[in-house]
Amino acid sequence: MEKSEFMDEDFLLATETARELYHNCAEHVPILDYHCHISPREIAEDQRFENIARIWLSGDHYKWRQMRSNGVNEAYITGDAPDFEKFCQWAQTLEKAIGNPLYHWSHLELQRYFGYHGTLGTETARKVWELCRKRLLQEDMSARGIMKASNVTLVCTTDDPADDLYWHEKIRQDESFQIQVLPAFRPDRAIAIELPDFVAYMQQLGQAAELKITDFADFLDALHKRMDVFQELGCKASDHGLLYVPWMEQDDDEAAKIFAAKLRGEVISQEEVLKFKTAVLLWLGREYEKRDWVMQLHFGVTRNNNSRMFHKIGPDTGFDGIYNQVPITQLSKFLNALCQDENLPKTILYSLNPGDNAALAALMGCFQEAGALGKIQQGSAWWFNDHKHGMEEQLTTLASLGLLGNFVGMLTDSRSFLSYTRHEYFRRIFCNLVGDWAEHGEYPSDWNLLEQLVKDVCYNNAVRYFGFALECV
Amino acid sequence: MEKSEFMDEDFLLATETARELYHNCAEHVPILDYHCHISPREIAEDQRFENIARIWLSGDHYKWRQMRSNGVNEAYITGDAPDFEKFCQWAQTLEKAIGNPLYHWSHLELQRYFGYHGTLGTETARKVWELCRKRLLQEDMSARGIMKASNVTLVCTTDDPADDLYWHEKIRQDESFQIQVLPAFRPDRAIAIELPDFVAYMQQLGQAAELKITDFADFLDALHKRMDVFQELGCKASDHGLLYVPWMEQDDDEAAKIFAAKLRGEVISQEEVLKFKTAVLLWLGREYEKRDWVMQLHFGVTRNNNSRMFHKIGPDTGFDGIYNQVPITQLSKFLNALCQDENLPKTILYSLNPGDNAALAALMGCFQEAGALGKIQQGSAWWFNDHKHGMEEQLTTLASLGLLGNFVGMLTDSRSFLSYTRHEYFRRIFCNLVGDWAEHGEYPSDWNLLEQLVKDVCYNNAVRYFGFALECV
Amino acid sequence: MEKSEFMDEDFLLATETARELYHNCAEHVPILDYHCHISPREIAEDQRFENIARIWLSGDHYKWRQMRSNGVNEAYITGDAPDFEKFCQWAQTLEKAIGNPLYHWSHLELQRYFGYHGTLGTETARKVWELCRKRLLQEDMSARGIMKASNVTLVCTTDDPADDLYWHEKIRQDESFQIQVLPAFRPDRAIAIELPDFVAYMQQLGQAAELKITDFADFLDALHKRMDVFQELGCKASDHGLLYVPWMEQDDDEAAKIFAAKLRGEVISQEEVLKFKTAVLLWLGREYEKRDWVMQLHFGVTRNNNSRMFHKIGPDTGFDGIYNQVPITQLSKFLNALCQDENLPKTILYSLNPGDNAALAALMGCFQEAGALGKIQQGSAWWFNDHKHGMEEQLTTLASLGLLGNFVGMLTDSRSFLSYTRHEYFRRIFCNLVGDWAEHGEYPSDWNLLEQLVKDVCYNNAVRYFGFALECV
Repeated sequence: MEKSEFMDEDFLLATETARELYHNCAEHVPILDYHCHISPREIAEDQRFENIARIWLSGDHYKWRQMRSNGVNEAYITGDAPDFEKFCQWAQTLEKAIGNPLYHWSHLELQRYFGYHGTLGTETARKVWELCRKRLLQEDMSARGIMKASNVTLVCTTDDPADDLYWHEKIRQDESFQIQVLPAFRPDRAIAIELPDFVAYMQQLGQAAELKITDFADFLDALHKRMDVFQELGCKASDHGLLYVPWMEQDDDEAAKIFAAKLRGEVISQEEVLKFKTAVLLWLGREYEKRDWVMQLHFGVTRNNNSRMFHKIGPDTGFDGIYNQVPITQLSKFLNALCQDENLPKTILYSLNPGDNAALAALMGCFQEAGALGKIQQGSAWWFNDHKHGMEEQLTTLASLGLLGNFVGMLTDSRSFLSYTRHEYFRRIFCNLVGDWAEHGEYPSDWNLLEQLVKDVCYNNAVRYFGFALECV
Repeated sequence: MEKSEFMDEDFLLATETARELYHNCAEHVPILDYHCHISPREIAEDQRFENIARIWLSGDHYKWRQMRSNGVNEAYITGDAPDFEKFCQWAQTLEKAIGNPLYHWSHLELQRYFGYHGTLGTETARKVWELCRKRLLQEDMSARGIMKASNVTLVCTTDDPADDLYWHEKIRQDESFQIQVLPAFRPDRAIAIELPDFVAYMQQLGQAAELKITDFADFLDALHKRMDVFQELGCKASDHGLLYVPWMEQDDDEAAKIFAAKLRGEVISQEEVLKFKTAVLLWLGREYEKRDWVMQLHFGVTRNNNSRMFHKIGPDTGFDGIYNQVPITQLSKFLNALCQDENLPKTILYSLNPGDNAALAALMGCFQEAGALGKIQQGSAWWFNDHKHGMEEQLTTLASLGLLGNFVGMLTDSRSFLSYTRHEYFRRIFCNLVGDWAEHGEYPSDWNLLEQLVKDVCYNNAVRYFGFALECV
Repeated sequence: MEKSEFMDEDFLLATETARELYHNCAEHVPILDYHCHISPREIAEDQRFENIARIWLSGDHYKWRQMRSNGVNEAYITGDAPDFEKFCQWAQTLEKAIGNPLYHWSHLELQRYFGYHGTLGTETARKVWELCRKRLLQEDMSARGIMKASNVTLVCTTDDPADDLYWHEKIRQDESFQIQVLPAFRPDRAIAIELPDFVAYMQQLGQAAELKITDFADFLDALHKRMDVFQELGCKASDHGLLYVPWMEQDDDEAAKIFAAKLRGEVISQEEVLKFKTAVLLWLGREYEKRDWVMQLHFGVTRNNNSRMFHKIGPDTGFDGIYNQVPITQLSKFLNALCQDENLPKTILYSLNPGDNAALAALMGCFQEAGALGKIQQGSAWWFNDHKHGMEEQLTTLASLGLLGNFVGMLTDSRSFLSYTRHEYFRRIFCNLVGDWAEHGEYPSDWNLLEQLVKDVCYNNAVRYFGFALECV
């Protein structure tokens, strides 16, 4: 590979085939972001951003972690230091981040949305700040403007069953906005019977479903009603955030008894927690299958490792980690239980531990069946793995053990409107991998085959898999 | 690396040294397949094949998995759809399999045995079908013909102790066939005291050994007798398929008591199962050492994850997975127990989890000793790891932690007579790795050293390690 | 990459940028070895070496393992065979070690210290032996001479709390020797309450601290006193060798009761062992923080897997392995307990299992905070991972998840005075990685930034992190 300029148009594209695949194909394919955490309210209100610090640093715990790694005082991270000073701290931190995806994401965002092709660091911080400030004053730099400029056709947000989906309704009613914004069903709190606020949450859930939850049947009824509402608003996907996928054998009405005990204020044992979770997840899985929803299982995450900071600034602030002992046999038994009576929904498996890649890719092969292309999917490299090395690993493992051609591809999992460049990042890495194989005789250099592959993995597979109301490209 | 044509003669060989090592050396070295699952009966009867679907799709669960991943109906996989239609489904599936070893294996087989150098896909399926049909009519395309054309000198099959080895006898008596076909001893059922058919199996085993098994002593006696018969037929290797290598301390006659209880129809506890397995495996290990047999331990496999399909079409149909929690300390204690009283046989360790590579390579270093070059071996990348990426990983880890020069190399682990191309695949990958190191100054570019290395790893090391009656090359 | 000569000046440096970074920068940066096992006595006495076998084979269990892998009889390894014959066995073994770091380390040592640029193997063994013998007669080939020639500014040895640090005193008093030799505090035996010699060790520790240890308070007092002495001699780091980092909740005076029971000769349960270890490690962590010492946690090691050889030749003779089930959640809870009351010292995490890389890199991000650049560090690829592949993995994971720019870099962990070439090995690999990123547009090709990065990771970061009395370069 010849020398390249810093993040130029051929960034990450080492071969001629890769460059052709990216520039003549992937670059022009629209973006479908089937899993993200952006706020529907911010879309409905077409949020604007005061400065680059607000858009970059107000909620991005990826960046916060690195600033802490750089010894930055918390005042400049989540505290009340002035925005410009926070930004300068970030710029200084970024200089140390060679090889980190944040280095690439940050510069891709500056290039694509702010037209800045230089580097960001201590010396250029003020210049970049000014340039961004001016750019953010322009009409098109709103939430919706950025989405349109990014060629987005559809996003799925992440929503609690008790959420009233008010902003989703609003967006749907607004005919001036063509991008589909669909809710996704994430009932984590409905399963977390071990948490102190579970009973309070049951009240919230009951209110949202307009019924009073007095027993397990009511609880399932409430979930069912909320799923109906989600479905009316176009929901096609659920999502579960877990340490690991629970599995414990249980009798028919055990979950109901455990639920009743919890409502009565009794202490629930570890084993009962596991049984309850298993029962509810199985019930949900069957519901997803009936509704043709995709079940997304995210696991391998240890939450809130740092209690001091948790008590100070709460969850999702950069203190989560990777779990290294996911019991793959429990996941297998869970999937098997659903499969046994033909109730297994389409499922995407995401482990936060890259060491699980091979085991997951092998396991999913055990539950593939007619009815979908790649009914069980290994999710894209996620969160701590969402870097060049991690994506190459996930793609290579998936290709080696499964059918890469059926992969549903990239999602941002992001809270930021500027994150669509992560699709670009993925596509460059994907085209590079495919180009490498084609140029070195490991797959035919057949443009039609390669173009179809790129379009499918970047877009069409997700359209078909989730059943979105979109045209393939 | 310059551009290459699709799977041409320099497939996977990126450097000049790699190409020289492959074409001037590895390519001409005979094949010794010390671990496979081909049927001795099919060799004895010199089986012929009606069409390419029969040879490719009648028993290959690797391909079945990918067809299910492609949403193919089971009728076209293990069902009774017409052969040609099955083949078309496979051809369509293969197009999606970029980066998968099946893509390469399938095309290598078409090139080497059928003289077809194009690609297989939807559009070429009929042409390839016809071409294969004609080729299969030719005299040399029988089981034996293919083995001869592949330059095979010896294969070890995989055989149950209760097997009468009738077909092995037959092959041995047939002086027209020069390739050695040896049995390998795989007593999985003799250890599986937790399975419902264990007692019935004891009857079978007793019959094979011509004695009645009424207690633990009889059981060991029967195994001993069967080992004698295997040995007479040239057996040099045993094999064990395990979730993990069992280890539990036990008193002298505990295994005998557990065995007796099982025969009486009593329920055996998990702990008793573990003790029994440990005891029998230790006894077998000592026997192997006495007979100078190699002990192969395959572990890290979860079997029959999909119960519905297991009940429908049985085991070995594509529903196995990778176990991710192999307790390496138990394996260590097991090897140590044998080593302690100088009864540790030559041993090859294979984990199905590539994440175990480094731990295994380190562990084997703890039990190396005078008496063999590489007495304990890390087995070749196996099953779900038997792809370019997996082989490179295994070879690199082994080289980094042990002596690659003593590695016993590749085996097919296959049920198909066309799988000898997997040795070619391995050799290309191996020569490429070695060539890369030599060309970039990481090892001397000394032809004599490099040629010896390639011959040893591809052939000679296995000849010496197992003690086969073969000349080194 | 063009063809290279065997281990020439551009060894491992694939790009022009890598070559410039190495030759114009890294090569001239002094060596700071903050963690090694060389003997302070050998430095104080300025040891000389009779022949290359003595210097290479008298204590290096890395080499012993490979010789055993090559079937060499123990007499030629740790036994009493003549030195030259041992050396010949090693030369023969080395020929098989393609891709192994010992191949590179051995040849780097021959090049840098003996001026020999050929290869070592069966045919050249005698020549190399002679050449080394002559070179070792020269004045500068003593312990101190080698350290000076290696441009070393500081080393930390590894010392037991009960060690009287006599030789450290000696070195400090000797004004003719400018290289700083500091003790590091390694209280493994003080924590190992499960071992039979724990009570005897308490006596030793008491004597060293000049007090009688009769209860837990005395025990902590003794440790405290020894830490004072270590500190006076410049100690800046502690080190712990563990299977995994222990964690178990406990009441206030439980550790004291367990300690008392142990002194009374009672049997200590597994749970008590865990509680005691947790308590003492927490106490030590708080002490380290007070003293601004760095806490090094090494884990994932299984010790003395081979009992027969352990009884024959003792520990640290090549029979340790990699543990594959390190409970990351316990490590998290341990760090969290220290963090909660703001007593977490600077900490370096080293797992021997490369599969833990990502989980560690993620976990350390949960405990970063103001006060140091990279307060929590992922240690350099260590022991069984200390090879090209392992270092690249560690560097890539660290870069992908953290700030590579704050990495404290390489240590030898070695017992040999010739091992400083491992810093060269690391620097070549590091420059190669950085050069690759810069040349391919993944980081700016800005010489100032790159030069600073190389100097920081190779030297300055360690100077600042540990707070050594050294100038940055």
